[in-house]
Amino acid sequence: MIKEVVAGVDIGGTNTIFGLVEKTGKIVSEGNLTTTDYPEINRFVSALVNAINKLLSRKSGYKLTGIGIGAPNANYHKGTIELAPNLAWKGIVPLAGLIRKKISVPVVLTNDANAAAMGEMIFGGAKKMKDFIVLTLGTGLGSGIVINGQVVYGHTGFAGELGHTIIVPGGRDCGCGRQGCFETYASASGLVKTVLYLLSEMRDESILRDIPPVKLTSRMIAEAASKKDPVALEAMDFTAEHLAFGIINAIGFSSPEAVFLFGGLARAGDMLFVPVRKYVEQNVQPIFRGTVKILPSGISESNAAVLGAAALIWNEQNR
Amino acid sequence: MIKEVVAGVDIGGTNTIFGLVEKTGKIVSEGNLTTTDYPEINRFVSALVNAINKLLSRKSGYKLTGIGIGAPNANYHKGTIELAPNLAWKGIVPLAGLIRKKISVPVVLTNDANAAAMGEMIFGGAKKMKDFIVLTLGTGLGSGIVINGQVVYGHTGFAGELGHTIIVPGGRDCGCGRQGCFETYASASGLVKTVLYLLSEMRDESILRDIPPVKLTSRMIAEAASKKDPVALEAMDFTAEHLAFGIINAIGFSSPEAVFLFGGLARAGDMLFVPVRKYVEQNVQPIFRGTVKILPSGISESNAAVLGAAALIWNEQNR
Repeated sequence: MIKEVVAGVDIGGTNTIFGLVEKTGKIVSEGNLTTTDYPEINRFVSALVNAINKLLSRKSGYKLTGIGIGAPNANYHKGTIELAPNLAWKGIVPLAGLIRKKISVPVVLTNDANAAAMGEMIFGGAKKMKDFIVLTLGTGLGSGIVINGQVVYGHTGFAGELGHTIIVPGGRDCGCGRQGCFETYASASGLVKTVLYLLSEMRDESILRDIPPVKLTSRMIAEAASKKDPVALEAMDFTAEHLAFGIINAIGFSSPEAVFLFGGLARAGDMLFVPVRKYVEQNVQPIFRGTVKILPSGISESNAAVLGAAALIWNEQNR
Repeated sequence: MIKEVVAGVDIGGTNTIFGLVEKTGKIVSEGNLTTTDYPEINRFVSALVNAINKLLSRKSGYKLTGIGIGAPNANYHKGTIELAPNLAWKGIVPLAGLIRKKISVPVVLTNDANAAAMGEMIFGGAKKMKDFIVLTLGTGLGSGIVINGQVVYGHTGFAGELGHTIIVPGGRDCGCGRQGCFETYASASGLVKTVLYLLSEMRDESILRDIPPVKLTSRMIAEAASKKDPVALEAMDFTAEHLAFGIINAIGFSSPEAVFLFGGLARAGDMLFVPVRKYVEQNVQPIFRGTVKILPSGISESNAAVLGAAALIWNEQNR
């Protein structure tokens, strides 16, 4: 019997990874390309389609029924990548259309946080949920919002930019040109900024004073916190309070059943989740108290990007 | 030929108004009850159903196909009114169920801001839109959010509480027990607070210095602004900037095509809309610049509550 399979593709600034995924979430085979090897988009498309076809030809008994793609600045409505600062392809790139010219299956494109949310719903911890939010806490803060079982794309196709909602008016400078954005506080890089701020405010000794700021990482800070370093502990608490603050405003908007935390900063585990839960319950509008779970992702981080992208297609075929 | 008609009901703390509404939005006939005359919910339900039946019996050729209700603290999922501070009925009131026991048509219940959003989509300025937000700027700030053509109710049924998203951490005391909520700045009562603050900060003469604070209204302030009173003008600008701030964060969430402003404060017209548009464009995340219209409601204020409630039913019958 021929089994249906979809390709999940995650395009990053440096690497593009992809895999063939069954409806159950089983990854049948995987591959990767170096994104920076293809500064010309048509060559990238050819290489990607060839690589997917090669994966298919090596496994018998599979039929490709769609390609789901997670990519920075991806526009779901138009199937384009638009003005992505970390990719060589400039302007507006009609990626879905270019791929469909080479291989006639449905192609769906969205940003990586929206793909992560879809992965959570189809394969992860949100299988029975219709209203939830996924926050990806990496260098920046990405968000995928699901309402009524649908990812929110909005009128422009770029909805779900919680990382750039402003939580501290006049606060930290953000790469978007404004100040006080959520991601400048609640992300791996936000945690580093918070340590630098606290090193200026606190008199306590700290192993973090020995590390040049440019080399400081969220992982080092989490390790220091696990060893009870006072500055690192305070930084985790400060970060949790600010993360909770942004979550609280999102709860007021869409009243989700759960908020999933994902990515580098979420690896801190209970050191982050325990105070975030505390601050959310303490500071959320009373009508929402006790209604929202703060959870780790139900998908292992190594598979998340490919599964999330594949879920984009499986979701559309489930309708 | 028998025409279908739905009843739109708006339950307020003092008055309940209702009307029979055709699919076109034509209000065939209207009536009202004094809500406070019925401290016992079963008597209220009997009176309301009798009054609707009376309206129907007076007009021949109409068949009732549903009852849509806007009410404070209404839970769409459950058909209940829950813990409404301004109503005599305490606890959790299963209003939809009680009505259906007396009259066997579909009954749909939601809060007045969600009903306003539905009215805007079915009968007003959002007829061709799938993603928009309605803000009702009265004593508080209510919000109805539409995404993918559906009102957002969330997991709890209480989503869309933008009035209680926090825009100024540690800011003005709010009735919800927290501080800095959007509605303490962007509402008719927020405008009054802003004038009091500015009277403390500014040295300018102002006719608003002659009015006891307890008697000050948003209408007086708008009138003073139209006469170039410097404090009133500054208060309109301050309010517009804060209203824009809350709108900007909502845009980051759902990327709407339009935000409709409705209610007492919106009557200030261009004095409010012009600076709100300016501040939104100036301060929104660059990716959303030029993508969101800030508009007055397309429904006349006197009909809005009944039409919004009726739209709840017409929307479900359109599916």
